[in-house]
Amino acid sequence: MGPENRLALRRLAETFSLPRLEAGWVWLAGAGPGEPGLASLLTLSAITDAEIIMSDALVSEKLLLLARPDAEIIGAGKRAGRPSPKQELISRQLIGYARKGLKVLRLKGGDPFVFGRGGEEALALARAAIPFRVVPGVSAGTGALAYAGIPLTHRETNHAVTFLTGTGADGKIPDFNWKAISEGSPTLVFYMARRQAGEIAAKLIDAGRSANEPAAIISSGTLSDQATTLTVLAELGPAAAQADTPAIIVIGENVRLSAGLDWLGAALDDRVLDSDPLRNNPLQSTG
Amino acid sequence: MGPENRLALRRLAETFSLPRLEAGWVWLAGAGPGEPGLASLLTLSAITDAEIIMSDALVSEKLLLLARPDAEIIGAGKRAGRPSPKQELISRQLIGYARKGLKVLRLKGGDPFVFGRGGEEALALARAAIPFRVVPGVSAGTGALAYAGIPLTHRETNHAVTFLTGTGADGKIPDFNWKAISEGSPTLVFYMARRQAGEIAAKLIDAGRSANEPAAIISSGTLSDQATTLTVLAELGPAAAQADTPAIIVIGENVRLSAGLDWLGAALDDRVLDSDPLRNNPLQSTG
Repeated sequence: MGPENRLALRRLAETFSLPRLEAGWVWLAGAGPGEPGLASLLTLSAITDAEIIMSDALVSEKLLLLARPDAEIIGAGKRAGRPSPKQELISRQLIGYARKGLKVLRLKGGDPFVFGRGGEEALALARAAIPFRVVPGVSAGTGALAYAGIPLTHRETNHAVTFLTGTGADGKIPDFNWKAISEGSPTLVFYMARRQAGEIAAKLIDAGRSANEPAAIISSGTLSDQATTLTVLAELGPAAAQADTPAIIVIGENVRLSAGLDWLGAALDDRVLDSDPLRNNPLQSTG
Repeated sequence: MGPENRLALRRLAETFSLPRLEAGWVWLAGAGPGEPGLASLLTLSAITDAEIIMSDALVSEKLLLLARPDAEIIGAGKRAGRPSPKQELISRQLIGYARKGLKVLRLKGGDPFVFGRGGEEALALARAAIPFRVVPGVSAGTGALAYAGIPLTHRETNHAVTFLTGTGADGKIPDFNWKAISEGSPTLVFYMARRQAGEIAAKLIDAGRSANEPAAIISSGTLSDQATTLTVLAELGPAAAQADTPAIIVIGENVRLSAGLDWLGAALDDRVLDSDPLRNNPLQSTG
């Protein structure tokens, strides 16, 4: 796993003239939605350079195998229902390691700036005059929907999509303007909302969304155990209660498109893999 | 550039047991927001495998240097104000090449399912029974905001963020419920909206957003010539008229955070690079 892959990454990083994680710096980098192949070259390169890696619980352990043998890897994950280090403590640790002149990587699931509290960590670094860089990643919602065959936007259904969290600072659903949320964007993607799904659905229906509107719960998005539950808004609460975490919940007509676009399911059950396009389709090549 | 890098990528892809682009398949893959280092390992691996690459205009040419020498690279880009192949033609070509048994990569800027018309291409492939995979990427908005130091979400300002396009199917601003858009989500990220910026700002102010609300126009997000214009809603139209494309427009209080979080600007003008944290800060290491 180790040296040859680090060498391979170094070569690629040099070819693309990528910046390198330097001593005394902190990089806040997104590791992507779960599948390690969805991490960016820049994030992978930072993993190979880092001396300290503070990693979220949802970051793939496979990625961490690229770290230097002498790198210190520190779990800083937050996960529903489990005790986790306080946000302030994480920021203090990042600052402390950087001040020691170490190369510090803060590896976050998804994208650091999408419900990742990366802004808070970045502000703490800026206030402490620690130089830092933000490396965006594929957000959990974007990744999960891609793997579930549900377009975030589709010309015939929506020109806007809203990402929301089901868990505010106090652990409860944020104080949204439900009527505006309901009427503003045809497609709603909720993070950290599995336990709140029933209440969210009730509020949306109360605000005018149809009880029969399609919804999906995508558990372990992009990972090998990804599971998608298709349901309707009225049944979202009970369906979510049965689903595994971490989960992304999507509400909107786009969900219907997964019937045709579930490429992952098709590949898994050989529906597509075994089909011969030329045999099954009267149309000849148009290329 | 070529063979050694392809070999390096192959090694990494095997280490992570990544799926491979097979004959007769089409992969719809996001190339990320511009900076080639933000492309995922899976997308890079597909570039090295592909025999046909249909690439958007905004995809970095550096990425295409990883393609096999015998790969055919076809421009399929759409760019404001330039003639471009029709969407239907692109889908027909993808189907045609796949039916010939080729390994086909459709390389799209950002993420295929976020204002990328990837859903339409995927539906065309599904209807033609062509096996396909969707590889998500870092969306242009996510990437541009990360590089501009503007968190998409921040606990103190917003628990929801809405992505919108300024250009509907007819080239005009989509028929949004402006009051709901205005009240639903504190942070709004507009794609393809530079020319429509003045009209969008007027509609938002009319719907109740403050004329003094901060806004930013980020041109060439994540690229070496990235430029960020900070303004307020009332001045967004004239400011956008001066900005280069491609541009992402963000409206909301989060924009203020860029004053502290502009790590790219800080690095470019050496404000941070030359600072010695230990000298400039009375606080000692807390790590």
